Amino acid sequence: MLRSSEPRLVILTEGYSDPINAKTATSVLRYGQHPTVAIIDSLQVGKTAEEILGVGGNIPFVANLSDAPTANTLMIGIAPPGGKIPMSWRSVIRGAIALGMDVISGLHDFLVDDDDFVIDASRFGVNLIDIRKNDEHDVCNQKDIRVECLRIHTVGQDCSVGKMVASIEVARALQDQGYDAKFIATGQTGIMIEGDGCPIDCVVGDFISGAIEKQILAQQHHEILVIEGQGSLAHPRYSAVTLGLLHGCIPHGMILCYEVGRSWVRDMPHVNLKSLQELRTIYENTASIMFPSKIIGVAMNSRLLSEREANAERKKVHLELGLPVCDVLRDGPHDLVKAVQKLHMELR
Amino acid sequence: MLRSSEPRLVILTEGYSDPINAKTATSVLRYGQHPTVAIIDSLQVGKTAEEILGVGGNIPFVANLSDAPTANTLMIGIAPPGGKIPMSWRSVIRGAIALGMDVISGLHDFLVDDDDFVIDASRFGVNLIDIRKNDEHDVCNQKDIRVECLRIHTVGQDCSVGKMVASIEVARALQDQGYDAKFIATGQTGIMIEGDGCPIDCVVGDFISGAIEKQILAQQHHEILVIEGQGSLAHPRYSAVTLGLLHGCIPHGMILCYEVGRSWVRDMPHVNLKSLQELRTIYENTASIMFPSKIIGVAMNSRLLSEREANAERKKVHLELGLPVCDVLRDGPHDLVKAVQKLHMELR
Repeated sequence: MLRSSEPRLVILTEGYSDPINAKTATSVLRYGQHPTVAIIDSLQVGKTAEEILGVGGNIPFVANLSDAPTANTLMIGIAPPGGKIPMSWRSVIRGAIALGMDVISGLHDFLVDDDDFVIDASRFGVNLIDIRKNDEHDVCNQKDIRVECLRIHTVGQDCSVGKMVASIEVARALQDQGYDAKFIATGQTGIMIEGDGCPIDCVVGDFISGAIEKQILAQQHHEILVIEGQGSLAHPRYSAVTLGLLHGCIPHGMILCYEVGRSWVRDMPHVNLKSLQELRTIYENTASIMFPSKIIGVAMNSRLLSEREANAERKKVHLELGLPVCDVLRDGPHDLVKAVQKLHMELR
Repeated sequence: MLRSSEPRLVILTEGYSDPINAKTATSVLRYGQHPTVAIIDSLQVGKTAEEILGVGGNIPFVANLSDAPTANTLMIGIAPPGGKIPMSWRSVIRGAIALGMDVISGLHDFLVDDDDFVIDASRFGVNLIDIRKNDEHDVCNQKDIRVECLRIHTVGQDCSVGKMVASIEVARALQDQGYDAKFIATGQTGIMIEGDGCPIDCVVGDFISGAIEKQILAQQHHEILVIEGQGSLAHPRYSAVTLGLLHGCIPHGMILCYEVGRSWVRDMPHVNLKSLQELRTIYENTASIMFPSKIIGVAMNSRLLSEREANAERKKVHLELGLPVCDVLRDGPHDLVKAVQKLHMELR
């Protein structure tokens, strides 16, 4: 995915350096394979990644590209609603190109569709890498699905609650226990981390379930697939993508992900969130239109809570739903991993 | 949509001249505003449109473009799975361009993405018109929805069961009764007929609900909108599009459409269809995640049945579901129109 032989990243999050808006940056810092030299946000100069994003140690925030002279690749580190490139970032991107840096973007607005960027890139001999660009054009068939491969899917109460993080943590913990497990990335950040996958929210409607089925068919030689979810069936903007993914990957089991403390849909304060119990019913009923599926556990994102509050929330939700609950970063993913192992035993 | 000032159509259905595969042709013959000179299918030469498609009177089937010398526009008249241009049709399309004809297509494979077609069109000065081509790039907001505008949405047991026909018939019957009703086209055929709308199954996932919301906002000065449905929530391939449409147009009432005699999902004989009662529950529950909505009637497509069989089916389904049921072509849409009027009264 990254074409430089040894990418050294500088990540752009100008004006959006919080763990939600800068979730691409945060996750690349947490899970990525390539070193990050600096993060650009003129409002945070002097701070470290750890201070602002809760991950990344002493990697500094800087104001300009010139403050990160050893970087050779600019990565766009945010995922704003609608995926558009903020106008103010254009000069930074063109500056990076002029310095001979490759540019990696996961936005819906493609770098390669922008004449200025394309002309500059050609002139300075750099690569423009659009993670979301795809030409998916095949419908799903629901054939040749290997019955011995367990499919686990993370689903959410909302966007940006931690579906990707839960998927990666569960897959890696399964690997640590000796399972042949694979994380199936379906979003730009997951793809940047894993090096493969499908940018499902940028696929044309008719081909969404076909695009994820293709990933399943390509990877089902593994014992367990953990398929990253997107959006929410209860999100007015993204429910189509969520359903195409759900019906295309026909999971045996689902992990319900939420962030404690939210009461409305992200970026839509006039739309209330559904309760976890309501969502459990919605996801189980909707998944089972195609294939019988159950919520097997809950991934709680408690980043805004104290240790004590988080423990109380965890117990409360466990009692309410009768399911294993954990914050995969705070508690580790072990309770969810046990739920996956149980389903895996039942499948065999 | 049709750029010729006076389009005279020749419709291409070579090898696919039945009412299901050639549903674009059939509906353009039934509802279109422009005259059709002939239909090209070398297997049907000598037959009339009425004989083969059940509509279109004496319009002849012909073997070649040269048999329709007064036509000035070639229309692709089928909607195959996946929307791809059959290889064998390329020479017909290039032949039409060489004769100076505009070409209209509703397929996913765009004419304007094909170098041969583009070079030919430029050389012979004709227009290539891709009905499905769109640049929808806005998310929905669920704001500024006019409460006085009644939104009715056709939903289906499967693809190609008559959702567009039911929508048009109900909208036109409402207009005949003096209502300010508008048909909102969401597929290529509906757009060819109505002259506006949005090719929703060709919109990128994240923007499906936004694209239909845009149509609603643009047309909600009308009293009643009848929004054409697509696919089915129970169709493995197209449920994403169906849900984006449903959550983007947040209908007050839905009309459930089906074709009598089907037992499996179109083009997927290994996937059984859900019963109408199951689908009623699925659609009402899924729509109501966003906005309370009920199935208010059933549009039965009984084209394969005798008059007597159709009457028996109509009574049976009416008793089973306790809802008005009619075949809009055979019985007229009046029972469904009454159900819409009732909901309209309740809204005021």
